[in-house]
Amino acid sequence: MSDEQQEREAQLVERVVASFDGTPDPRLKELMRALTRHLHAFVREVRLTEAEWQQAIAFLTATGHITDDRRQEFILLSDVFGASMQTVTVNNEAYANATEATVFGPFFVEDSPAIPLGGDIAGGAPGEPCWVEGTVTDTEGRPVPDARIEVWEADDEGLYDVQYPDGRVAARGHLFSDAEGRYRFWAIAPTPYPIPHDGPVGRLLAATGRSPLRASHLHFMVEATGLRTLVTHIFVRGDEVLAHDSVFGVRDSLVKDFTPQSPETPTPDGRDLAGRPWTRVHFDIVLAPDRP
Amino acid sequence: MSDEQQEREAQLVERVVASFDGTPDPRLKELMRALTRHLHAFVREVRLTEAEWQQAIAFLTATGHITDDRRQEFILLSDVFGASMQTVTVNNEAYANATEATVFGPFFVEDSPAIPLGGDIAGGAPGEPCWVEGTVTDTEGRPVPDARIEVWEADDEGLYDVQYPDGRVAARGHLFSDAEGRYRFWAIAPTPYPIPHDGPVGRLLAATGRSPLRASHLHFMVEATGLRTLVTHIFVRGDEVLAHDSVFGVRDSLVKDFTPQSPETPTPDGRDLAGRPWTRVHFDIVLAPDRP
Repeated sequence: MSDEQQEREAQLVERVVASFDGTPDPRLKELMRALTRHLHAFVREVRLTEAEWQQAIAFLTATGHITDDRRQEFILLSDVFGASMQTVTVNNEAYANATEATVFGPFFVEDSPAIPLGGDIAGGAPGEPCWVEGTVTDTEGRPVPDARIEVWEADDEGLYDVQYPDGRVAARGHLFSDAEGRYRFWAIAPTPYPIPHDGPVGRLLAATGRSPLRASHLHFMVEATGLRTLVTHIFVRGDEVLAHDSVFGVRDSLVKDFTPQSPETPTPDGRDLAGRPWTRVHFDIVLAPDRP
Repeated sequence: MSDEQQEREAQLVERVVASFDGTPDPRLKELMRALTRHLHAFVREVRLTEAEWQQAIAFLTATGHITDDRRQEFILLSDVFGASMQTVTVNNEAYANATEATVFGPFFVEDSPAIPLGGDIAGGAPGEPCWVEGTVTDTEGRPVPDARIEVWEADDEGLYDVQYPDGRVAARGHLFSDAEGRYRFWAIAPTPYPIPHDGPVGRLLAATGRSPLRASHLHFMVEATGLRTLVTHIFVRGDEVLAHDSVFGVRDSLVKDFTPQSPETPTPDGRDLAGRPWTRVHFDIVLAPDRP
């Protein structure tokens, strides 16, 4: 490349960066300037062709058009590039033995049903019963009473309730830890499912030879006064999808033993499962301080 | 930042990059890997907050929802970050004295009317008559006969015909250079206009203290056998908007003297302008070889 060409490209970057000089909000200015530099670095490095630029415009347009109140294709796009997980990582810095965070995902819904300790979040969603229990502590090992534990998951067909056509609420709920920080509830055993892949993001995954599957997981959001809110999942040890989770949400520390139980094994709370097999998992939650 | 945190972030980037290893098309693989690295570099460098990530998702969603057959907000977004202009720059490398390229813009339409040499492209669009003439040559100075010269522009209210509600064709056309490479036509004098700024991109410009105005310009696309197709504009010397064109399309070499003429000055072709003032501009076009 000629010096003249290098100069033209570099000057253009500086002109665009300078165009944000008058931004009143300093953080917005910082973001716009950095975005400009990284965007131009990409275009220059790959020598993006005009046809590829057109394809990118068409891809974003299609992504916009499939997105509505129930389908968020831009979140999926961020997810499959690991940008969601990187944002989570940047905002939940490693702190002592605090439980690691992972992606929030697009399926959380406010106002989930309250369930008592030992209650069942399934709400009729199909799946094998799964007993989940553990303790919430801080990084000093002190129990955290009254922590709000929100849980949500897909059913055994891979659907969250918001994907049901009838609008019913299932496989989500919230409960509070007891005076010793302990919690326990019934859920359903997580199974792998694909992210929605009938849109532009699905076509991108197909074109790049990637699977749309998410490793089996159960979502948690845990909040307690004075402690950092934790948004995470637990994953199922042995799940083949762990190594290629489509949104890069897996952390080794979040992979747990979901132990299968025969129908004959008594349930912890004496619940009668009518001869069905069930599963149990133990997950101790450690919350970082709110402001380390 | 702790080593553990650095390591977590860096490992995530490598996991995402590696996820594209199975991409069958080598160019797509290169693009996806590079995009991943630059995207993650941005998120890590600015320590993007989760709230900012949410804003970005909402911004892209709104950009998608305003985009339709007549409004291309993603192109505007690329334009105001200079990404369109950088793509043009990368694909039209500096070559000897070849005329510089600039952005294509969203207002080109196929199948423009053919006009004869010396004809008028205005088609009834309001604006001061402007005589445009020059020569098409190659970089050796040889005239290029029969070059296809496509021109299009906004009217003096800043609107292209595709923005008219009635669908009529105006202020666009194509003609061919003569045996000596010369061309000439009537157009209307270009005036500054804002890019559409009632959408997300307009709000971004407002939040960053930037003007939506484009410097006055006349679009050209020039095609000739064996030569590189040139997509460019000419700009008006003295236009105050030159220094802050909203899409970074201005090149010094493309700024031309649009010389005002009194109503009494005879027109080059004897056309009777009914006592109106007019303008003239000279633009010599130099085309690079198709494959330098």
